[in-house]
Amino acid sequence: MERLFYPRSIVIIGLSAKPTNISRMVLENLLRWGYRGRIFGVNPHIDELNVSGVKMYRDVEDLPEIPDLAVCLLPARFVPEVAEKCGKLGISRMAVLSGGFSEFGGAGKQLSGLLLQNARKYHIRFVGPNALAMANTANGLCLPFIPIFPPVKGGMSIITQSGGVGLMLWNLLADENVGMAKFVSIGNKLDLDETDFLEYLDSDPETTIICMYLESMSSGKRLIQAAKKCRKPIVAYKSNTTSAGGRAALSHTASLSSDEDIIDAAFEEAGIIRIQNYGDLVAVAKVFELPPMHGNRIMVMSPAGGFAVIGADLCEKAGFEFADPGEDFYKSLNRFANAGVIKFSNPLDMGDIYDPHMAAHVAYEVMHNENVDGAIYIGQRPKMPEGNNVFRELFLTDLSKETYGSMLSSGKPLGVCLYGLSGYMHRVKKYTSFPIFNNPEEMVRAFAFQKDWHARRRTDQEILPENVYFKKENLQSWLDASGEVVGEEALELLSLTGIPAAVSGIARDEEEAVKLAQAMGYPVVMKVVSPDALHKTDAGGVAVGIGDADAVRRCFARIRRNLEAYKEGARFEGVRIQKMAGEGHDMFIGGKFDPSFGPAVVFGFGGIYVEVFKDVQTCLCPASAPLVRKKIEALQSYAILKGTRGGKPADIEGYADAIVRLSWLLTEYPEIREVDINPLRLFKDGSGLCALDARMAIAKG
Amino acid sequence: MERLFYPRSIVIIGLSAKPTNISRMVLENLLRWGYRGRIFGVNPHIDELNVSGVKMYRDVEDLPEIPDLAVCLLPARFVPEVAEKCGKLGISRMAVLSGGFSEFGGAGKQLSGLLLQNARKYHIRFVGPNALAMANTANGLCLPFIPIFPPVKGGMSIITQSGGVGLMLWNLLADENVGMAKFVSIGNKLDLDETDFLEYLDSDPETTIICMYLESMSSGKRLIQAAKKCRKPIVAYKSNTTSAGGRAALSHTASLSSDEDIIDAAFEEAGIIRIQNYGDLVAVAKVFELPPMHGNRIMVMSPAGGFAVIGADLCEKAGFEFADPGEDFYKSLNRFANAGVIKFSNPLDMGDIYDPHMAAHVAYEVMHNENVDGAIYIGQRPKMPEGNNVFRELFLTDLSKETYGSMLSSGKPLGVCLYGLSGYMHRVKKYTSFPIFNNPEEMVRAFAFQKDWHARRRTDQEILPENVYFKKENLQSWLDASGEVVGEEALELLSLTGIPAAVSGIARDEEEAVKLAQAMGYPVVMKVVSPDALHKTDAGGVAVGIGDADAVRRCFARIRRNLEAYKEGARFEGVRIQKMAGEGHDMFIGGKFDPSFGPAVVFGFGGIYVEVFKDVQTCLCPASAPLVRKKIEALQSYAILKGTRGGKPADIEGYADAIVRLSWLLTEYPEIREVDINPLRLFKDGSGLCALDARMAIAKG
Repeated sequence: MERLFYPRSIVIIGLSAKPTNISRMVLENLLRWGYRGRIFGVNPHIDELNVSGVKMYRDVEDLPEIPDLAVCLLPARFVPEVAEKCGKLGISRMAVLSGGFSEFGGAGKQLSGLLLQNARKYHIRFVGPNALAMANTANGLCLPFIPIFPPVKGGMSIITQSGGVGLMLWNLLADENVGMAKFVSIGNKLDLDETDFLEYLDSDPETTIICMYLESMSSGKRLIQAAKKCRKPIVAYKSNTTSAGGRAALSHTASLSSDEDIIDAAFEEAGIIRIQNYGDLVAVAKVFELPPMHGNRIMVMSPAGGFAVIGADLCEKAGFEFADPGEDFYKSLNRFANAGVIKFSNPLDMGDIYDPHMAAHVAYEVMHNENVDGAIYIGQRPKMPEGNNVFRELFLTDLSKETYGSMLSSGKPLGVCLYGLSGYMHRVKKYTSFPIFNNPEEMVRAFAFQKDWHARRRTDQEILPENVYFKKENLQSWLDASGEVVGEEALELLSLTGIPAAVSGIARDEEEAVKLAQAMGYPVVMKVVSPDALHKTDAGGVAVGIGDADAVRRCFARIRRNLEAYKEGARFEGVRIQKMAGEGHDMFIGGKFDPSFGPAVVFGFGGIYVEVFKDVQTCLCPASAPLVRKKIEALQSYAILKGTRGGKPADIEGYADAIVRLSWLLTEYPEIREVDINPLRLFKDGSGLCALDARMAIAKG
Repeated sequence: MERLFYPRSIVIIGLSAKPTNISRMVLENLLRWGYRGRIFGVNPHIDELNVSGVKMYRDVEDLPEIPDLAVCLLPARFVPEVAEKCGKLGISRMAVLSGGFSEFGGAGKQLSGLLLQNARKYHIRFVGPNALAMANTANGLCLPFIPIFPPVKGGMSIITQSGGVGLMLWNLLADENVGMAKFVSIGNKLDLDETDFLEYLDSDPETTIICMYLESMSSGKRLIQAAKKCRKPIVAYKSNTTSAGGRAALSHTASLSSDEDIIDAAFEEAGIIRIQNYGDLVAVAKVFELPPMHGNRIMVMSPAGGFAVIGADLCEKAGFEFADPGEDFYKSLNRFANAGVIKFSNPLDMGDIYDPHMAAHVAYEVMHNENVDGAIYIGQRPKMPEGNNVFRELFLTDLSKETYGSMLSSGKPLGVCLYGLSGYMHRVKKYTSFPIFNNPEEMVRAFAFQKDWHARRRTDQEILPENVYFKKENLQSWLDASGEVVGEEALELLSLTGIPAAVSGIARDEEEAVKLAQAMGYPVVMKVVSPDALHKTDAGGVAVGIGDADAVRRCFARIRRNLEAYKEGARFEGVRIQKMAGEGHDMFIGGKFDPSFGPAVVFGFGGIYVEVFKDVQTCLCPASAPLVRKKIEALQSYAILKGTRGGKPADIEGYADAIVRLSWLLTEYPEIREVDINPLRLFKDGSGLCALDARMAIAKG
């Protein structure tokens, strides 16, 4: 990796002086940025001895030394051969900028295979294809083939799956006076992917925050593992979330859409900050330049009462508490008030404090108040006519030193959002040593992300998970014997993991049914067993509340008759007899195998309303008990489980335990592709729970 | 109103040449803006003959003519007296800028009362107090007391409850090159309020769109009526939505928070576009400068594939369909492609079209394609080094004429979002004759608002609602006889409006109970009637499924015993006998009286889960059947009512009818402050519905 970002020498393959030659742009950027290593050009078809002073060679074999990095922007059909030549010479790193690979389908996919094969043969690691590759403000490396100025040096590094989206960030940064460390556009990520670069940037001393734009993940699981280890904040904008987005991404960088709920759960578990607005990539980078917010108590300030209201609305929605700086503080403010026409509170309307230095003093007092963990200020730099007046002084006085001083002294963040003409704001940002936000919405979102990230760092203790829930031996033989699609008998397997499941037996005839029912105790539930009746209710194959032996016999006969009437020649394999469960709340637990993130459990309000209210939460497997518990509490139906209207609480611990056990089942046996436990009944009297029905799909062979 | 925005002469009361005199700023603004009417100054305490050339008088009585408008920024305690003097002279319009009235509580409230009293006495209409009052780009009127340049003239007019929030918009407009017509900061709106100004701006020929910032509404009902009649788009940012926001607003402009759900419903019914981001006030103003989008089929375009993906995600989430311009269109694009490495689809990645004029041609083709109703384009104006190259030409060529031509020719909107350095973007906006959006998020939100607004205008036919549901005579006598809090007997009143309600009778003894039960048919439900058992279940006073005469007798006795055991000396007034209802889906209908908007109905998923899933919709009263029907379909539980898993659909029409009838009950009898029908059972077999329980609160006297 080091060699990719700090190559001592670079060869640009396909360079020429022609105005239409795009490789020339790469060279020009290197020269424009003041790159310090050696540069060579290779092109078999030109007569020029040099391009912009860089000596040209006919072939890589002719080069006077083996360069650290080869950059290739030739049409796709030539690239595998170039890789072979580079490999033979001993070049071990490449940046493949060319498009026309798998994102274009068909022939492009073949070329991808060939490129990868040749690279593997010669141990070449490469970024791309269909990528803008690396840039590094530390050494003047700039491989994107679009003429571009170097950004200000800083701590933000960028990993992007789209060149255009990534490069546009540079312009935003320049406008905001936020600095950049390293950049990589990974394109089709045929070899090196987002996780490889994430791991490198975690160890890169120049990088303080990692921003990602992703349309897909090569391996969600690897990314999550790397992110969990990462000590720096990671901000990700994951697009391609909808079916239409999916179409565009397929043709763009050969991505496939993943399940968004699983991504949300995975990012949350890994501490990745997922944003929904492109511009928030910069807003979040800004907020991490401020001191950490160590508590939840915020103070909202503005010289415009209306903006104080707007800021307070946003803070409350984002989950902040309003700090109470105390009566003494408010009293002290009255000394500065001009007309005495505004009452002080939090949010703090500073509209009556006309002296800007007094406003700075208020900010100082707020920041050093022990009941305040952080503050936001929504102000303005309006376009003002010339000439001295109180408002010009109020609005245009530079308080950036005082503000920053209060932050550094208190060790708490003060978010400053200033409205004003963009040109003037740009100048203000240039002379201000801390970031300024562009609107209260992005500022409050960013503050919430920063606070949560630091809170997580403080409490996070990675405990290596371990399966202390069940022994594998019994389960393996059960799975070996099972088919690919398993119906109600899946309850047996769940039972082996320790999840309470309804006990049942299959009766072949009336008398066996009565015997089973008597052994279990009345009333019982009776259900047809037939490979030809997938939907048992439709086949008239379910009866509940059967109370005595006679009723069992009559019911058995009726179920058999119903099956015959339902489908001619349907195979009758008996009737399942199950003790009828007591009253309770029907929840569900599901499991699925995500190709990118591995197994995940999904759980929530079940029964017949499961699709109606979509009250579900998701955890990756194996899921930890505290996380599951937290997510159960986030369910709307948690209110039911706690006991509505004086009812007893359900066995919530038992529910969490069942979820954790299922997550371990899926972890230990990834061949289980899908599980659906529904309903899982939590008894109303709080006496426990019981899985009443289940299905399962298992990949065989 | 005309006189407020076009005064032929103005007197500024309290003017002086002192640097600390704020009234002087008003004068300076009038002079800076080129106001054409006469201006007078009044101040009893100064010796100067003039201030900035404006002649000073000691008293309003000394003025040489009666000015159209008096502007007053004196401390609150002097203002009522000034109003009296102005009134005596014959001045009929005032702008009261002073703070310190009801927003400051106590003494301020008294001053408010006095000011209003004096104004009424002399038929003075005024804006304020605690306001920045009016500005008008048509005639150079500018009363805000902060030195400020005139914005570009245009069609956007602003009504704001916060001076600071309103004035800041001027700076945003200046930055965006969007024009302003009229402005009014209404402050405490003691006399003239948002609705008065809305009505005026609707008739103002200079105004094309009305933007409002509100923290409260004087009368929601009046505002809604005016908005329904208004022929221009109205965009509103309503803050003060949370409890903390509420605190600030109380001290700011003496506002009180209203119920947000009712506001949402009311704004929707009136066609007011409610936004949640302050900056969207400008974004929505921009989108209404584009031709209307008459259908839902959008085309998403970008020269950066990643932004095409981002745009598509946003459009899909906003409910747009993706236009299909047809195979011929895509084939024709291949002629322009450079490397042939991108497949064309919608979203359209134009990254391979390097000639900007070809890009313009593609835009032309898209806009004129009959399967496209509108399009968005996400592009960039990056900071580029000097020197000719293909990228410089691609990114920096001005295509604004071609783009605008395609719009005017096709009559469809093309939303253009450009990223770039703010300074450069400001220049681009200056020479572009249509608006440019700053990010795809605000652009897609604004597009959805515009499309919906036009769709509504096409279908909207205001039908004057009429109560054809019930006659009032019977209801009036029932209400006259009722108490303030009504329990289950409220079902009788509902029954009189035509809402199917459970019939019941009260039995004083066992034999009467048996008689009632037999008349209704078994099984029955029995419930205690006692003023001392508000929660009947807690008192052991409810029994269901009573199947025969013997059981009725036993149950009657038990209920009486339970009541005695529940509370010593509890008054037993009998047992209510009700036929037990069949199985069904339990929904609810509620009604409440909002002090600002009048009565509203709330309805949704009922039973014991009503607070758990909060699956509710709101309509103002009287509610129309089609709107109620639409909102029932928006309920999550609509899936249940339609019939899940092959079940029969419930009587949805009957449910809608019951909601409409309740809304008329509340309209005709606003003294009904609260109603709660829960559960309202919709029978599973689709055979109708029945209100099983209800409560009501009625204001008496």
